[in-house]
Amino acid sequence: MRVSQLAATAGVPVATVKFYLREGLLHDGQLTSATQAKYDESHVSRLNLIRALVGSAGLSVASARQVLKAIDNPPSSKHELLGAAHHAAASPPSEAVDVTRARELLTGLGWDADTCDEATLSALVGALNALDAADFTLSPEMLRVYATSMMEVAKAEIAGVPTDSAEAAARYVVLGTVLVEPLLLALRRLAQQSASAQRFKQHP
Amino acid sequence: MRVSQLAATAGVPVATVKFYLREGLLHDGQLTSATQAKYDESHVSRLNLIRALVGSAGLSVASARQVLKAIDNPPSSKHELLGAAHHAAASPPSEAVDVTRARELLTGLGWDADTCDEATLSALVGALNALDAADFTLSPEMLRVYATSMMEVAKAEIAGVPTDSAEAAARYVVLGTVLVEPLLLALRRLAQQSASAQRFKQHP
Repeated sequence: MRVSQLAATAGVPVATVKFYLREGLLHDGQLTSATQAKYDESHVSRLNLIRALVGSAGLSVASARQVLKAIDNPPSSKHELLGAAHHAAASPPSEAVDVTRARELLTGLGWDADTCDEATLSALVGALNALDAADFTLSPEMLRVYATSMMEVAKAEIAGVPTDSAEAAARYVVLGTVLVEPLLLALRRLAQQSASAQRFKQHP
Repeated sequence: MRVSQLAATAGVPVATVKFYLREGLLHDGQLTSATQAKYDESHVSRLNLIRALVGSAGLSVASARQVLKAIDNPPSSKHELLGAAHHAAASPPSEAVDVTRARELLTGLGWDADTCDEATLSALVGALNALDAADFTLSPEMLRVYATSMMEVAKAEIAGVPTDSAEAAARYVVLGTVLVEPLLLALRRLAQQSASAQRFKQHP
């Protein structure tokens, strides 16, 4: 199909398709003349993937490129794959932080802090510091509730990592990381609304 | 204290303090002459709060203003308060979406979908659609794992809402919504790294 059909099929403007081609997020079509190329189903599904990343997942084009790179060139070890996914999906690095506080917290929870990457440990410290700065320090009990729920989630997710192909595993891990985050946050807010209505017995 | 001392105490540049004053996020000091004002501890703690919101929580100045407004003018009902907090902390509204899918999902989980606001239901639909678009549709079992964990979190959170004053409740709900989100996401990634190391037995 031509670029105009590709755009119509994926439901995006032609200019957007050309932008993704120029940025290297979408692979080139097969040239049929000096100025025309043809595209196939692989381009449609790649476009859908790009739209999901820069649309709802809210990634920048640069982050989307990193995520796609991790899917296209999966490292051989499954555990490294997760690191690559988290790295690709991480927020732009801020200044270096002392991650001792995060390591101690994780060790206290019985987690293996040595297998955790610095960037994510820094994100945890940043979140804890922001709570402290706002005079909203969490109790150890509440922190434990958060950690326990997230470990339940993580165990189910890691148990589901496909082991048949590196590409399938990369797709699962990378998309599971970035696309599930907005889902979890929406579910938490809806659960709060539902639980709040129950506790305060005030239906709108 | 003078504006320069206020800035030094809160650890932000004077220009930033002036910007927050101009934007109405920080309340004015008490005028001591036509061009000078004095500030007190209330300004320091407000500055810390603003920094937490626009810093780690990653809110825009406009969203931070909404959040602060909800804290400053809490609605009388606790349940409305949660709505105001979620509204203030919500991402910029996208186009209207059909939320039937979200309502059905919540009803299937036994949650009270009628007490949930449209904006958050739309966010859930958006997240589900993004997963579908990326060919990463979640199984009903996995969705249930996510929902169950988030309900555990929400119940503990709602149980902790202080009922002594509207201001305290507003602070708890608003800050709990926006400042805990980065914490939860960091904990999920760290839990994944810990669980992945265990499953794939590959320490870096």
